[in-house]
Amino acid sequence: MTQNTVEKTPVTLLGLGAMGTALARTWLAAGHQVTVWNRTPARATALAAEGAAAADSAAEAVAANALVVVCLLNDTAVDEVLAGADLAGRDLVNLTTSTPAQARARAEWARERGARYLDGGIMAVPPMIGVPEAGGYVFYSGSSELFERHQQTLGVPVGTAYVGEDAGFAALHDVALLSAMYGMFAGSAHAFALIRKEDIDPAALAVLLADWLIAMAPAVHRTADQLRSGDYTQHVVSNLAMQVAGTPTFVSTAEQQGVSPELLSPYFELMRRRLAEGSGEEDLTGVIDLLVR
Amino acid sequence: MTQNTVEKTPVTLLGLGAMGTALARTWLAAGHQVTVWNRTPARATALAAEGAAAADSAAEAVAANALVVVCLLNDTAVDEVLAGADLAGRDLVNLTTSTPAQARARAEWARERGARYLDGGIMAVPPMIGVPEAGGYVFYSGSSELFERHQQTLGVPVGTAYVGEDAGFAALHDVALLSAMYGMFAGSAHAFALIRKEDIDPAALAVLLADWLIAMAPAVHRTADQLRSGDYTQHVVSNLAMQVAGTPTFVSTAEQQGVSPELLSPYFELMRRRLAEGSGEEDLTGVIDLLVR
Ligand SMILES: NC(=O)c1ccc[n+]([C@@H]2O[C@H](COP(=O)([O-])OP(=O)(O)OC[C@H]3O[C@@H](n4cnc5c(N)ncnc54)[C@H](OP(=O)(O)O)[C@@H]3O)[C@@H](O)[C@H]2O)c1
Ligand SMILES: NC(=O)c1ccc[n+]([C@@H]2O[C@H](COP(=O)([O-])OP(=O)(O)OC[C@H]3O[C@@H](n4cnc5c(N)ncnc54)[C@H](OP(=O)(O)O)[C@@H]3O)[C@@H](O)[C@H]2O)c1
Repeated sequence: MTQNTVEKTPVTLLGLGAMGTALARTWLAAGHQVTVWNRTPARATALAAEGAAAADSAAEAVAANALVVVCLLNDTAVDEVLAGADLAGRDLVNLTTSTPAQARARAEWARERGARYLDGGIMAVPPMIGVPEAGGYVFYSGSSELFERHQQTLGVPVGTAYVGEDAGFAALHDVALLSAMYGMFAGSAHAFALIRKEDIDPAALAVLLADWLIAMAPAVHRTADQLRSGDYTQHVVSNLAMQVAGTPTFVSTAEQQGVSPELLSPYFELMRRRLAEGSGEEDLTGVIDLLVR
Repeated sequence: MTQNTVEKTPVTLLGLGAMGTALARTWLAAGHQVTVWNRTPARATALAAEGAAAADSAAEAVAANALVVVCLLNDTAVDEVLAGADLAGRDLVNLTTSTPAQARARAEWARERGARYLDGGIMAVPPMIGVPEAGGYVFYSGSSELFERHQQTLGVPVGTAYVGEDAGFAALHDVALLSAMYGMFAGSAHAFALIRKEDIDPAALAVLLADWLIAMAPAVHRTADQLRSGDYTQHVVSNLAMQVAGTPTFVSTAEQQGVSPELLSPYFELMRRRLAEGSGEEDLTGVIDLLVR
């Protein structure tokens, strides 16, 4: 903030949805020159009043700066928006949510057009942008050269985490973490459903739930150690046989409370399948192998 | 520990499996007189060498002390073990895992026999017993009079959390928290499966996963607030319409990585069903209502 003498990298930003707008605002606030373009021009007009240069076309915006950040709805929108732009010599950073395969294809597409390519997966929502204490960050993968050159600029709106040269790894990490989160949300939904008709305050249960989930989350470290060693009996706390023996209590309780067990059943079914393979002394880690074809 | 002059409540403990043995040891270590009984006598012999009184029958053990703690495999074992015991005037604490309905029936059964009844659900594994910093605790519900009278003694091996007069509530809280945990484990299993064939260190992913799950767990507080108010559009961060729009990325990524989406699909399906009811502006909370019949 005090380094006013240091030249700030100018940024081109394509896409001024909720996320793009939040990104543009923090770069502007940090003293970067920002050139913006959006399909619906009204959103660019608003930012122009705050100091951004509004380009008349995506191609013009791309021509304005070496660092080009794209934050559009999806991969199809990226195709449409960049169709007429000259990307030669550009440092293209794509923050549009995509699958690993889309990101890898986009990296190849950019290479053919003479651009360096970095793919991003945003682990934050717009209100967390420009708020470092909110803890949001972006996974980056692809050109490490590009990342190193622009890490400081990219780190202005939100934290950065580089996860490898494979352009698909940012999306893969993004999807992996969000998938785990949806599992946790599914489990919590089941927990809240269990007390829905009881005289139990959901806020009181939430306090217990949050503490318990936070206490149990570090179990993933043990899982990782077992995956690395290949020995799923390592440091087992409650073995699979014991845990499978306990599952009828969960299903019966759900039934007694009038709650469908559909969010838990698939996991319990995989636990039983793994047990049937003779893995009673193992941890729950073997379930992972049953998921992979 | 320094209160040697204070009379410690003597405890009878039926069941010396992994959990019962751990409980008995901490009470002995804290200076309580402990009378034990176990179906297989060898386990009682070992504890007798550490200072416990080994009773010849469950009935004799029950007769020895007013406070009777039971920690057996399941509800059927409780039936068998207590069949011949005189429970009149006893304070019966049942730590055997059971469903809410089993706990409620057991409370009524104890009342008919002239005993006060407290049901417990253990949120700990044996290595956490007698280790306060491990953070384990037991949910208790049923007789508040019994709980207040014996809270100090019950708190010796592991923390205590009283959750209501309804004897089924301890089991319900226990099952609710463990159900949420299994959801989180299912989500984490999917996440690890996604990177199984990639050159990504599971231990590195685990660090990211644990941080992310810990950061997202407090979302249950917002869910609870929405359940209380009945307004599921309150303080929404990412609305249901946006989140459902994102689900194909998760399913495609799983398919690209050769991972079965079976652990996530049921939750996504409920999200879609809720959206189809016209709830696009809501949070994910409406899924809970779809689970309850
Ligand atoms: N918002 C979040 O919480 C969040 C979190 C993590 C990641 N992300 C990702 O960030 C990206 C942007 O999200 P957002 O929240 O900013 O979305 P948004 O508010 O819906 O904005 C979508 C943007 O894409 C543009 N667009 C859509 N289709 C287009 C097309 N065919 N041609 C040109 N422009 C097109 C829109 O332009 P118009 O203004 O003309 O419609 C708008 O600028 C998405 O990939 C999203 O998954 C968002
Ligand atoms: N261990 C954990 O991590 C954990 C965590 C939370 C809750 N719990 C709960 O704590 C309770 C005890 O668990 P644990 O780990 O101690 O189990 P355990 O090691 O398998 O011991 C089972 C106990 O039950 C007795 N038993 C089984 N069937 C019996 C019968 N028909 N008649 C008489 N006694 C019988 C066994 O006696 P014998 O020695 O004669 O076989 C043994 O004392 C269970 O309800 C469990 O769900 C355990």
